[in-house]
Amino acid sequence: MTATTPGPQSEQPGRIMSREMAEQPAVLRRILESGARKIRAVAEQVAAKKPRFVLLTARGTSDNAALYAKYLLEIRLGIPCGLTSMSTTTAYGARPDLTDVLVITVSQSGGSPDLVASTKAARDAGAITLAVTNNPDSPLAAVSEYHIDIMAGPEKALPATKTYTASLLALYLFVEGLHGGDGSAAKPLPDLADKLLARHDEVKALASRYRFAERMVITSRGYGYPTAKEAALKLMETSYIPALSYSGADLLHGPLAMVDNISPVIAVVTDGKGGEALQPVLDRLRGRGADLVVIGPKAQVEQASAGFVLPTEGVAEEVQPILEIIPLQLLAYEVTIARGQDPDAPRALAKVTETR
Amino acid sequence: MTATTPGPQSEQPGRIMSREMAEQPAVLRRILESGARKIRAVAEQVAAKKPRFVLLTARGTSDNAALYAKYLLEIRLGIPCGLTSMSTTTAYGARPDLTDVLVITVSQSGGSPDLVASTKAARDAGAITLAVTNNPDSPLAAVSEYHIDIMAGPEKALPATKTYTASLLALYLFVEGLHGGDGSAAKPLPDLADKLLARHDEVKALASRYRFAERMVITSRGYGYPTAKEAALKLMETSYIPALSYSGADLLHGPLAMVDNISPVIAVVTDGKGGEALQPVLDRLRGRGADLVVIGPKAQVEQASAGFVLPTEGVAEEVQPILEIIPLQLLAYEVTIARGQDPDAPRALAKVTETR
Repeated sequence: MTATTPGPQSEQPGRIMSREMAEQPAVLRRILESGARKIRAVAEQVAAKKPRFVLLTARGTSDNAALYAKYLLEIRLGIPCGLTSMSTTTAYGARPDLTDVLVITVSQSGGSPDLVASTKAARDAGAITLAVTNNPDSPLAAVSEYHIDIMAGPEKALPATKTYTASLLALYLFVEGLHGGDGSAAKPLPDLADKLLARHDEVKALASRYRFAERMVITSRGYGYPTAKEAALKLMETSYIPALSYSGADLLHGPLAMVDNISPVIAVVTDGKGGEALQPVLDRLRGRGADLVVIGPKAQVEQASAGFVLPTEGVAEEVQPILEIIPLQLLAYEVTIARGQDPDAPRALAKVTETR
Repeated sequence: MTATTPGPQSEQPGRIMSREMAEQPAVLRRILESGARKIRAVAEQVAAKKPRFVLLTARGTSDNAALYAKYLLEIRLGIPCGLTSMSTTTAYGARPDLTDVLVITVSQSGGSPDLVASTKAARDAGAITLAVTNNPDSPLAAVSEYHIDIMAGPEKALPATKTYTASLLALYLFVEGLHGGDGSAAKPLPDLADKLLARHDEVKALASRYRFAERMVITSRGYGYPTAKEAALKLMETSYIPALSYSGADLLHGPLAMVDNISPVIAVVTDGKGGEALQPVLDRLRGRGADLVVIGPKAQVEQASAGFVLPTEGVAEEVQPILEIIPLQLLAYEVTIARGQDPDAPRALAKVTETR
């Protein structure tokens, strides 16, 4: 019933998701040891073309990885970024002038026809195109000028886990390469990921809190916001609990009406400026008597209803998202098990979405 | 209990929201008659500076208006756009080079300190700055190089309604002005909005469907997607029903697991390419036996479980969002009344959010 002590394979719900979550430290290690050099080479070639604007294209889990890259690019490089509305190209045939624009398409499978079509259209419109996928032989990699392999190995579970953390690390190393950073902040990640996975019993205890939840709100700010979105997606696609994610500032603009005693709140608190910017939101939630679970630094967890302490010492804020999603993946898994469902059998998830 | 026949003011829940929804045709008329010329003049000055990228900044309801503008700019002008992650500037101090970049900040009040700070930072970084607000005397208008007044009059209800449709129309006219279009597609809107409001009894009948709903899913593609997001926000901030909005393509990527008999679905079907691109999603939802309510053209409503027919003849796809939100605002209002709550008294909505 846990990530590290699987029962008989044929009967255990969630065994595929469990196994792939457990592979994450090894995947992160593989990227650092065997992929970082290639990623850096791609970054140097892209940097030489001096992109002025970056457009990120993705769907689902990969869209949350793209959002993480958007924060990195804007904060570390000062390049303005946008997430594309794919239908403007695929449905409406928009053909913007993309000279000096870097278009990054993130897709685990590299097979979605709409992503291939929009990337091809971008390249035809003058963009520098980069595909970030788990499949170097994919159609998406083939139509893109550059390709980064996230080296996660085959992902069979329908809820994506290891391809998410692998995408984040690959994108981090790429952005570091763009501005000549050494990427050393990533070095402690594989060992720390191992330690997080070993604490799955803590997550199991947290999961009981949500066994009967009818809804959840997940909030964060800054680098942690993609984590909040990805955690909400993971919870929905495994447990079917409607999980709503908001940046802390947006939460104060309206949906806070839903909080109170009705919706439990999970706050993803990065240790750094994102966490500082979230502080007024945390104070407001506490003042309203919300059930607040914090995934973050010890001091923040101690002030909350419950939580999961993340390692922060020596972990740069910009790489914390690669770790902080792990207890939330485990939480989605354990909540689903607690509700008597199978995390490996979401009712309607297709691994390659054939949207056009 | 309806938008047009208010009962005694002191006792009727939702009377403020009801009155402001009813003002929408008059507001649209006012913008076309008294504002369009000024908006066009601003657009011509901005166009002369030849922006290459557009960044849109907003929160809450205004963020959905900004998303509508993003579709317009990408499809009608072919200018690549992004929605900003405000915390990159306000929390992390990112200072991107914004030469040739048009930064549009949409804010009903023009008073949120974080929006003022990020707009000021953008102007200092070389951006062409444009504020779209309901208050020409606001701090946001003051720090921006250009300002467009959405002329909606004071908005007192906490859930924004007339400022949303007013923002959409102002942004439509601005984008038309940027590319020398005449904006004539907007002319029929005020009369059509009147006709939609007169059909509030139809919406009341639809509302009974959601009186006991524990969750809702709202989907669309293309121009209708901002409508889906705004409808979800309106439903949440008035009725507290967790309403999840997804682009049709994202829905197929995972959250479809939540649909089935658990979550009723509202599909916003624009008559045009957006609706065509949504077709496979509608087929899939019907195939799964979902409770599907369509807000859209007659032929689509007839194939759904129920719906609300929108006027489409002679209404260009790009202006349909200005109409299609109206029955959804009424729906949020009526569902809230049906649940015995007061749409004017959401529990935690502040009109100017003091996020920093």
